[in-house]
Amino acid sequence: MRDEEEEGDRFENRARRSSRTSARSEFDFINSIRQRAAQRKARKTSSLTMPPSSLLFGIGDDAAVIEQPGGLCTVVTADLLVEEIDFRLKTTTARLLGHKALAVSLSDVAAMGARPRWSLLSVGVPPEIWRSSFPDEFYSGFFALADRYRVALIGGDVSRTPERIVIDSVLMGETARASAILRSGARPGDHIFVTGALGGSALGLRLLERGMNGRLLRDEQPLVERLIRRHRQPEPRVAWGAALGEEKLATAMIDISDGLSSDLAHLCLESGVGAKLHAERIPVDPSVARLCERLQLDPLEAAVNGGEDFELLFTLRPSNLSRLPKRIGRVPATYIGDITSGRDGILLLKGSRALPLKPGGFEHFS
Amino acid sequence: MRDEEEEGDRFENRARRSSRTSARSEFDFINSIRQRAAQRKARKTSSLTMPPSSLLFGIGDDAAVIEQPGGLCTVVTADLLVEEIDFRLKTTTARLLGHKALAVSLSDVAAMGARPRWSLLSVGVPPEIWRSSFPDEFYSGFFALADRYRVALIGGDVSRTPERIVIDSVLMGETARASAILRSGARPGDHIFVTGALGGSALGLRLLERGMNGRLLRDEQPLVERLIRRHRQPEPRVAWGAALGEEKLATAMIDISDGLSSDLAHLCLESGVGAKLHAERIPVDPSVARLCERLQLDPLEAAVNGGEDFELLFTLRPSNLSRLPKRIGRVPATYIGDITSGRDGILLLKGSRALPLKPGGFEHFS
Repeated sequence: MRDEEEEGDRFENRARRSSRTSARSEFDFINSIRQRAAQRKARKTSSLTMPPSSLLFGIGDDAAVIEQPGGLCTVVTADLLVEEIDFRLKTTTARLLGHKALAVSLSDVAAMGARPRWSLLSVGVPPEIWRSSFPDEFYSGFFALADRYRVALIGGDVSRTPERIVIDSVLMGETARASAILRSGARPGDHIFVTGALGGSALGLRLLERGMNGRLLRDEQPLVERLIRRHRQPEPRVAWGAALGEEKLATAMIDISDGLSSDLAHLCLESGVGAKLHAERIPVDPSVARLCERLQLDPLEAAVNGGEDFELLFTLRPSNLSRLPKRIGRVPATYIGDITSGRDGILLLKGSRALPLKPGGFEHFS
Repeated sequence: MRDEEEEGDRFENRARRSSRTSARSEFDFINSIRQRAAQRKARKTSSLTMPPSSLLFGIGDDAAVIEQPGGLCTVVTADLLVEEIDFRLKTTTARLLGHKALAVSLSDVAAMGARPRWSLLSVGVPPEIWRSSFPDEFYSGFFALADRYRVALIGGDVSRTPERIVIDSVLMGETARASAILRSGARPGDHIFVTGALGGSALGLRLLERGMNGRLLRDEQPLVERLIRRHRQPEPRVAWGAALGEEKLATAMIDISDGLSSDLAHLCLESGVGAKLHAERIPVDPSVARLCERLQLDPLEAAVNGGEDFELLFTLRPSNLSRLPKRIGRVPATYIGDITSGRDGILLLKGSRALPLKPGGFEHFS
């Protein structure tokens, strides 16, 4: 057992999304559902006449993929956000929650190389919160983000709950091609890229919950606020996802919700490959680097294990390197390593050392 | 204020689905979201190049409708089920809950005249329930029903919750034609039909919660069990919905989740029409008629106000009467009245009297 002090200094992410944690119990169960669903699919399609649309890929990626008769694909994803597990009213606002509910799903759709189109939002709230300004502010936050990406709210459900708020955000997107970008397409030799910078959301959550222990200097205040905003109001990489899909540039893609170490592990598992990452190439958020130094935390740990950055992690054939945009808007993509055959698993190269990199995942059902 | 005795003898439906109640506060709010969503849609489409697929109808019907480039429509619906509001573990089982979560959505898709295809299931459960046999039994119930209608589970989310179970069932279906059957298509002169029989689920719930007050006779036991099953394990009218959609027979359709009086009101409101129902034609479940007599309850009230029967209520042009199947499988469709111009609202004709029929809806946010 590690002592409490050490526990307290890890980058946990209690507000992390729930479906794609590496936690064994939950992950295993989702796998068993997935196998059941796949067996059913195999058994049934043989006895069916060809349907007008067909399932290309289901449970186990950022979104399910349905091939439409017109030759394009519909992708669809669901994200369940539960009060006290995925968010706390003490540390967020109704408006930010409306933003985040859509943002997490936008990130999933982006990770498929698709454009977001239609949203269904199911919201359960206790009566006293229903009667407050919460619903109006929540939908304001939702629509502000939806408008930016021309997402239409087309349905959902509203219910009373006994105590807690619960939100299920369902988002449908469309690809510009006959295929989506799956987690399973990475091949040995592919380069590994990540958009933006990492670690900001995890440190933002920490600062939100525990502050700077009174050690905050004046010029650090804007950095703290920036990181807290990074956690509470994440910006999904919608334009990057759509561009990589339209150009069919990425061979595999996943969004960073559980943390780089966990999400790279998911991608490698689905692709049947390994990876080596260059520690010094991993783009640590500059504010994270600065504040971690003062807090005596490891910024690399924040960047590698910290979740909810909602950056995109993707792989690229070396021959396509020249076609990759350096940045889209103000968001760069950074080369951080390479896909390997998988024999050595995932390695983090740091100076002359090669350390096995294990998923720093969050155990939901511990 | 009515006294408690009277209150206790009404057919309430506490386990009713939440999104389409006639409760003013909730209904008004959904309408305001709908208007916002519609305004946004109108504002945006003008500045957009024609997208590959387009929204035909969003919030305000049993499901949203998206027109696909191949000429068919995708319909999609979401149903949120919250423990203690929509179900209680005391009065249901994990397996029945898995059945019901899909059944309510199947009913919505049927009400659009579409065939069900793809399901996304988001499930939040407390850790102690996660570790029990609940998940396995829940998914068994779900898959047993999904297999019958060849519905594939393609996604969803799994999360921990602090106390209660919550389920969001999202179902996508496809129409066989370029249009779905909306609530808004009924015209004066159309006949009104309902599938199956009514009142069973509401009385089933009452029997489940309050029993027969010790007055149960031996030969009534099978009837009681039948009605409780009707409530806990509803059978959505999937074949009827698909048939009415394929033949484009119904001009408007809705499923009976809130109760005939409420759901007919929704249909009439969307269509801008009125209706007259013949009380003696309303198909009251025979077990309901029998047990209500013994319980000194009004079977017509159970049939008219009781919710969650998941029968289909639809309208038909008189010229199409000869094309309407008498029954599909063992489920008949019964003529119960006619659509009127709307001047007199909705009337229930009983003997020589014409009574205004108001929605007997359930107030979620009272």
